[in-house]
Amino acid sequence: MARVFNFSAGPATLPPAVLEQAAAEMLDWHGSGMSVMEMSHRGAAFESILDDAESGLRALLAVPPGFRILFMQGGGLAENAVVPLNLSRGGAADFVVTGAWSRKSLLEAARYCDAGLAADNQEDRRRSIPPAASWRLRDGASYVHLCSNETIDGLECHELPDLAALGCTSPLVVDCSSHLASRPIDWSRVGLAFGGAQKNVGMAGLTLVFVREDLIGHALPTCPSAFDYRLVAENRSMYNTPPTYAIYIAGLVFRWLRDFRHGTLAGLPAVEQHNIEKAQLVYDAIDGSGFYRNEVAPAFRSRMNIPFFLPDERLYAPFLAEAQARGLVQLKGHKSVGGLRASLYNAMPMEGALALVGHMREFAARHG
Amino acid sequence: MARVFNFSAGPATLPPAVLEQAAAEMLDWHGSGMSVMEMSHRGAAFESILDDAESGLRALLAVPPGFRILFMQGGGLAENAVVPLNLSRGGAADFVVTGAWSRKSLLEAARYCDAGLAADNQEDRRRSIPPAASWRLRDGASYVHLCSNETIDGLECHELPDLAALGCTSPLVVDCSSHLASRPIDWSRVGLAFGGAQKNVGMAGLTLVFVREDLIGHALPTCPSAFDYRLVAENRSMYNTPPTYAIYIAGLVFRWLRDFRHGTLAGLPAVEQHNIEKAQLVYDAIDGSGFYRNEVAPAFRSRMNIPFFLPDERLYAPFLAEAQARGLVQLKGHKSVGGLRASLYNAMPMEGALALVGHMREFAARHG
Repeated sequence: MARVFNFSAGPATLPPAVLEQAAAEMLDWHGSGMSVMEMSHRGAAFESILDDAESGLRALLAVPPGFRILFMQGGGLAENAVVPLNLSRGGAADFVVTGAWSRKSLLEAARYCDAGLAADNQEDRRRSIPPAASWRLRDGASYVHLCSNETIDGLECHELPDLAALGCTSPLVVDCSSHLASRPIDWSRVGLAFGGAQKNVGMAGLTLVFVREDLIGHALPTCPSAFDYRLVAENRSMYNTPPTYAIYIAGLVFRWLRDFRHGTLAGLPAVEQHNIEKAQLVYDAIDGSGFYRNEVAPAFRSRMNIPFFLPDERLYAPFLAEAQARGLVQLKGHKSVGGLRASLYNAMPMEGALALVGHMREFAARHG
Repeated sequence: MARVFNFSAGPATLPPAVLEQAAAEMLDWHGSGMSVMEMSHRGAAFESILDDAESGLRALLAVPPGFRILFMQGGGLAENAVVPLNLSRGGAADFVVTGAWSRKSLLEAARYCDAGLAADNQEDRRRSIPPAASWRLRDGASYVHLCSNETIDGLECHELPDLAALGCTSPLVVDCSSHLASRPIDWSRVGLAFGGAQKNVGMAGLTLVFVREDLIGHALPTCPSAFDYRLVAENRSMYNTPPTYAIYIAGLVFRWLRDFRHGTLAGLPAVEQHNIEKAQLVYDAIDGSGFYRNEVAPAFRSRMNIPFFLPDERLYAPFLAEAQARGLVQLKGHKSVGGLRASLYNAMPMEGALALVGHMREFAARHG
């Protein structure tokens, strides 16, 4: 069948150009006579792939020299333990709970440190992010954890808080799994950021960690060596065998993002503007419909993951079936919240957003 | 260039038929309109891929119903921590040190439990494995750890010890990273076996764990949730997003192994016999040469990884350069032991072993 528009929340759609290149190079990468999958991670060929991926990512996101980029495994879920194992020193860490993911991070961290609840948007039914000035931040906390895009709840923190301006000296830890490389990151406000590759930049099995150098080297004795940031950094992400093929694919995606054009823009600004416009199309279709519903406060609506609901439970099955028939797939909402969800990551083309909006309008006209 | 014969110790050579299928399916898996990389791990398509990989592996290695197969991340190095975190209960565990890898396992486990040295072949300069009857096994140890193929030292335990026959009731933990699926495993002698996929069955980033059900559910409180065997097992390896593409590739390799033919044999017996014959070719070329040297006692020589040495240090560079010119690559020995190493995993064809032996004979004739 023809390629579909895949709205999965992750693993997620990838640029066809990247997949075509991966297919073309599958049996013989650059005249090496072998696939990237078959390469020793210690050889010059793979080292060049790793160098390329790292420098590509560093340039794309303007990661300052004081940050190390680590290519790890285990996904965001493993990082929920790995971050406190490396940063907490068994002391306090404060968590801003804005949805399902940050709640999970808090619960896991509580096994390793004094994990405090700095804020919780539960009372607001996860529709907005409490202002940073209201967060209960403890002096001397080893870090403050924020999930800057809640994939399930569709809530995005579009501007990272300036903790220093609030008189807080703790480093900010950002779980950016579901907006990684979809917009710039203000590194001056960040101590550590992490994200799985499988949403915006590649395939599952690769976790990207950006960590300020002064935060490396403080792992608890119970931290598994394979997840000790110091060992990973000192060995350039090759303390254990890294997920070589996933790094290669991410490197191809970083090049694709670097070369991305939208209007007169290029690179990350083009990617961001494209993401803004795609999301706006879908939110406009929701808000203007009198039929679809998304309750997140406009200032906190995610560009990446748009949950929305129908006025009648009986309409979900036909909505999904008719979407599928048009090649619009993976629109079912997360089981914990129900409804529908459209994820519009970097690789979703404008045509995908337009096709979705077309389906939404037509469906609402018939059932509204 | 044409495909080379790749003797890398891992990541390592894969069957061209598997790579060709992966390339052909890259943009559209079975009419789904998407790549396996892009599939939600919660969807029916990926579930069928996971089911296929698991049942294929279970059938290939005749894994009994009382064992769970877990698809994890982090490689053998992570398992060095994950196994004691799950099995030791903070008590004793005994380690048979037969080379670089098992030594590493012992050192990592010592951070989580009372890790004892049951045996060490250092005095024998890593040339043989001490008989199980001589191992110092402690009553009530939570497990006994054995690396059944030492990749660096080229030492293989061809028959797993029968601990019960020695009066030891502790389960045997087998690190089979570098012989996984190259020969049968006697599951009646095993409590847990683990191995990275990147040597015999796929790409880096996937770790296979076979664990007897009664050993699940005893994780220490400090075990990260993503690596708690109970949570992984209860969620069918989807507690966190699994390395979906690596599982797909492994599934293709399992099918290739199932269909493997050698003489009148089929499946794993054919794979094993093929591996025996390839290794024998190379060992014969070493032993009959009066030029090359491998000091491992014949009963413990690895079929997978054959380290060998030249009579003169100055000959390594020309040996490797001439091999490379013939399309025989990745023959340099591990930096810790030097010399040469030929890894002959499942996907190395007989032609590769023959080409290597041809090069060895010719080189020895010129320099011997």
